[in-house]
Order: sequence, then structure tokens, then C-alpha cells
Amino acid sequence: MKGVITIGRELGSGGRTIGKAVAEKLGVAYYDRELIDAAAKESGLSPDFIEKNEQAVTGSFLYNIAMGNSYSYGMLGLAGTNTLPLTMQVFLAQQKVILEYTKTPCVIVGRCADYILREREDVLKVFIYSDLEKRAQRAIERYGCDRKKALDLIAKSDKGRARHFATFTDWDWGDRSNYDLMLNSGSVGIDRAVEIICSCAKELEL
Amino acid sequence: MKGVITIGRELGSGGRTIGKAVAEKLGVAYYDRELIDAAAKESGLSPDFIEKNEQAVTGSFLYNIAMGNSYSYGMLGLAGTNTLPLTMQVFLAQQKVILEYTKTPCVIVGRCADYILREREDVLKVFIYSDLEKRAQRAIERYGCDRKKALDLIAKSDKGRARHFATFTDWDWGDRSNYDLMLNSGSVGIDRAVEIICSCAKELEL
Repeated sequence: MKGVITIGRELGSGGRTIGKAVAEKLGVAYYDRELIDAAAKESGLSPDFIEKNEQAVTGSFLYNIAMGNSYSYGMLGLAGTNTLPLTMQVFLAQQKVILEYTKTPCVIVGRCADYILREREDVLKVFIYSDLEKRAQRAIERYGCDRKKALDLIAKSDKGRARHFATFTDWDWGDRSNYDLMLNSGSVGIDRAVEIICSCAKELEL
Repeated sequence: MKGVITIGRELGSGGRTIGKAVAEKLGVAYYDRELIDAAAKESGLSPDFIEKNEQAVTGSFLYNIAMGNSYSYGMLGLAGTNTLPLTMQVFLAQQKVILEYTKTPCVIVGRCADYILREREDVLKVFIYSDLEKRAQRAIERYGCDRKKALDLIAKSDKGRARHFATFTDWDWGDRSNYDLMLNSGSVGIDRAVEIICSCAKELEL
């Protein structure tokens, strides 16, 4: 594979597992949380801070611009030279890293990579979703929490990702028109999803 | 295959072509416009009338109930014994036919078959979509019209199908949560889409 596969996903859908398996099967790099660390280095913000703030956008971008200058830098004691709100600094730092990393073939899960690479022809844009019950089961196993907590995590994650897209892109998170393939991992299964993505990537000679 | 494959699709996405190819490849029956004729026989309405009215719902189901009795039968000179609006008679007649036909393995394109069969475990629910330009190109070739007319047909079809689902089901047309597979035929191609659907149907032992 010469191109890039981006994977958007719902929490508990197995998107990360599928992305890792696809990257391994195709022999290309896999990027996910690693991007946060790289983005941190780029932006001079701590990985912990970026992770906490990445999808904790409290409103629209304009709201953040309005609020950003009034508290962010003071609170964190950062140099006041950068006049962008921290949430936007984080997004721009990740975008910079994504554009750099995707110069070579790879699989990227999340991080609006599909939107950031929207102009490229050699990108297969995938979205992984599943039914609520199966997502909850996965979340319970992954986070070792009870069902109530798992459902809460899922609701918060869906809301956060939708808001993240609404804030930094002109796409609706999960809108089919932005994807090449949308797979219900609860129906087709993790292994079958991996096979479908790999075969499409090969067929399309990405 | 022992089960059923339902295919929802956007006009110009190649959903019918894909459905026919899948049915042929799996050696099962294919149903689409044929359902209209069968439904006509069931309901005693003419195929032409059903085809015209099938997705020409002018508002909500309640609106149609309200309006239905006041004009439909008189206009069409039908017996006034049936108190349901004609759009609902059409839907119920098609539903009856779908439930009958799907007692044996088949592929059904459109007609809310995915919703009507929602309780069955042995149904693979697929949705085929594509980008507007490719849909327009397909519509131009299929209907021999110009681009403006093709875009108009697409807009009317999308609106009509969304309204049809909103009127007769509690699903949103094209909402991923109701499908197992959603394929962008403009990206993966018609042949690849057929392969993916067939391999999933086999894997899932439908």
C-alpha cells in the first residue's frame, strides 16, 4: 500500500483493534495515541494536557476563541505570544503531525485525519460503528467498568467526537458522505472488517 | 445462502445493479420493481398508480390519514370500504408481499424491506451510496437526461425516500445504526461492492 487508511470510529466499536490489525496485515505504520505525544512535542504542550483537552471542547470554535485568551494561558502559565485558544493549538499541532506522518503509508485512527487529508486521492476513509449493546460490552471489558459506566462513557464519547468535528471541521462526525466504507463491526465482526478494509485498500491500489 | 439481503440505496449509486449481481452470484431471487406488481395484485390497485404514489407521500402519515379519506377514493373512483389512505394501502400491500417473498432466500432492493424485516436475525442490511457527481453521471446515463435534470431527480429521490421512511417507519433513511454494511460505490466500485456483500453473506452464514 502506498497511501493512507483513516479510521473514524465509535467508542466500543473495536476501531482501534481493527486499525492495528489492518496496519499489521498491510505492513504499514499505525498511529493513534502516539499522535498526541508527537503533537505535544510540536506544540510545546504536555501530553497529559493535550489528552485531557483534545475532545473537551466546551462549545463552538468562536466560543473558544472568545474564552481562550481570557483564561487558558494565565491558568497554564504559558507564554502569551500565541493568541489561539488551547483547543485550537492542540488541533493544529495534531494536524501538523498528521500531515508529516502521512507522507509515508499508514493507518490513522481518529484525530480528524479523514478531514485533514480530504483533498488526497490516495486515502481510504473508513468508519467503524456497532450497536449500543455490543459497544457497551466492549467498553466493560476494555475499561473494567460496570454497564452503567460503560453507557455513560459511550454517550460522552459520541457527544465529544461530534462536537470536536463540529468545532474544527465542516463535516458531521459519522456522516456517510465523508466515508468510503462504513462497517458495523458488531454485525460483520472484527476479522471480516479487517479483511474488507485490506482488500479495498489493495483493490484501489492506494 | 439461507437468509435475506436487503439493499437500501441512493438514486444513482448503482444499488439495483449491485443487488442484481449479488442475487445472481449467490443464486437467489432478486426483488425490486417486481414487488410493485405483486403488491398491486394484493391491494387491487393498478401498478401504475402504486408506482406513482409509492414515494409521493406529501406529509406525515397522520396528514395522509387526514387527507386520504377526503380525496383519494373519490378521485380514483375506488370503493370507499377501505378507510386507510392510499399511500398506506400501498405500503401495507408491499409489506405483505415482502413478508411472503422473504420466506425463501432473496435480495430485496428498497421498499423499506430492511425495516419490515428488522426482527429477523438472518438478514444482512446493506446501504449503497455515492458522491453526488458520480450519482449524477449514473442518472444521466440511465435516464438519458441532462445534468440539471439528473441533479433534480437525485434531490427529489433523496427527499422522497427520507420522507417515505419518516412516514411509515421509526427509522431515519440511511442512518448507519440500521445497517450492517454501508458502501460508497463511487469509491469501492460496483464489482468490489458485490464481492464484499457476497463474502459477508457467506461469512455470516445467512
